[in-house]
Amino acid sequence: MCHACVIDKVKTGMLSRRDLFRGGAAAGVAAVAAGAMSARPALAQSSGKVVDLTHAYDGDFPTFDGNPGILYSSQYDHDPDGYKIWELTIYEHTGTHIDAPLHFAPDGASVAELEPENLMCPLCVVDITGKAADDANAMVEAEDIEAWVSANGAIPEGACVAMHSGWGAKVGEASFRNTPDGALAFPGFAKSATDMLLDMGAACIGVDTLSLDPGNSADFAVHYSWLPAGRYGIENLANLDQLPATGATVFVGAPKHKQGTGGPARVLAVT
Amino acid sequence: MCHACVIDKVKTGMLSRRDLFRGGAAAGVAAVAAGAMSARPALAQSSGKVVDLTHAYDGDFPTFDGNPGILYSSQYDHDPDGYKIWELTIYEHTGTHIDAPLHFAPDGASVAELEPENLMCPLCVVDITGKAADDANAMVEAEDIEAWVSANGAIPEGACVAMHSGWGAKVGEASFRNTPDGALAFPGFAKSATDMLLDMGAACIGVDTLSLDPGNSADFAVHYSWLPAGRYGIENLANLDQLPATGATVFVGAPKHKQGTGGPARVLAVT
Repeated sequence: MCHACVIDKVKTGMLSRRDLFRGGAAAGVAAVAAGAMSARPALAQSSGKVVDLTHAYDGDFPTFDGNPGILYSSQYDHDPDGYKIWELTIYEHTGTHIDAPLHFAPDGASVAELEPENLMCPLCVVDITGKAADDANAMVEAEDIEAWVSANGAIPEGACVAMHSGWGAKVGEASFRNTPDGALAFPGFAKSATDMLLDMGAACIGVDTLSLDPGNSADFAVHYSWLPAGRYGIENLANLDQLPATGATVFVGAPKHKQGTGGPARVLAVT
Repeated sequence: MCHACVIDKVKTGMLSRRDLFRGGAAAGVAAVAAGAMSARPALAQSSGKVVDLTHAYDGDFPTFDGNPGILYSSQYDHDPDGYKIWELTIYEHTGTHIDAPLHFAPDGASVAELEPENLMCPLCVVDITGKAADDANAMVEAEDIEAWVSANGAIPEGACVAMHSGWGAKVGEASFRNTPDGALAFPGFAKSATDMLLDMGAACIGVDTLSLDPGNSADFAVHYSWLPAGRYGIENLANLDQLPATGATVFVGAPKHKQGTGGPARVLAVT
């Protein structure tokens, strides 16, 4: 089933978004479900090297809306309680975190409903550091996916396709989020690329920036198409420069609170 | 270095607890660090089957103190905002979650400081369902570890050793936490077993119950020895009945908020 057909069926209600994500009737979805197993060859060749794609974060970590993403309050402490526990206030979309379909689709899968098989993915790293150095709002376009495929072979079904823009190294700088005059500015995916990845059966896209869409997006075109189509995203990835373009496997430690729209995650890659 | 020596040096301050966890001077610690790589053979033999060891949770999930572990408040919603985000209040030790050394050791490693290599572990499942059916406060004792080794070979260095008591299937029942008269009652580890696992270089212990110590523990002997020795724990594991005693690899999606004492995690096993 072509991407346009899937989107059309979603729009007309012939295929629910939730069924779509769960691997129901559509051929494209069946491909995703089957594709999750394609991590096996990568695992079988694993060197066992672990790369942590997760930023450590606290209330100083940059957020999309500029407010602290986590607040700490002591519930118990070593003195006098003998042990320590924090009461945390977490605004779900902070730190290295998941965007579940429910984030942008009222009937989309919650983060607790993501299929476990889609949390272990062949990882494809698309390097756009060159154009991102010239344009803070650079995008992974369809032609970047085509170039990646020409160089590395097909995008595996069930893959996580991650944008490496170089922004992961800027996380302590104002330029991670803004231009000098305060406008949001960071790289992201173009819908031309994610429409192609929908057809190819990717399970997930990831970015090393604050949003799947670039900072200057006026319409959140990727959020409003990728997530309602039943796929998920990861924002604020770290250390993508330490990974090859292809061959790694990523384990996505998505949180599992019921009805969650996403949330802070631990993301580990194995090469 | 024998376990008694390590504990003695920790007590006398010759070896800091944080250094111990980080793989500093002690031979036992070096073994843990090296052992993290021993997941490789298991991965190389992987079938690619993913087993989710994580319970989906919300405010109804049972907790040690009996209070809700998570509260939800709407920050943004589809109508009128166009997308949905929850403000979550999380008491760190709820759901399937990590106990980091800092939970019981003032100078222990936080959950963000766990070594990524120790989040990918060979998984050893110790089945005590038989005695747990007769005694709700049954424990994994040293002799259970010895019996496991006799049947399955050495505990791999850097392993996660998980207690399978059968409690994972009781999570919706009052008996997950209590006796009929309201006393805390659930299986856990005995210090005799965890002292042995310290010597063997295990990185982590896991339980399918609310606590590393059994429900009737008066002294939290395991929490007060295992965690200050620089190792970590996982509580409320699910689906251990779906795994072999040996041969699986576990990916521990520990949260990474700075200074965290632990917190809700996604735990995935690959067989």
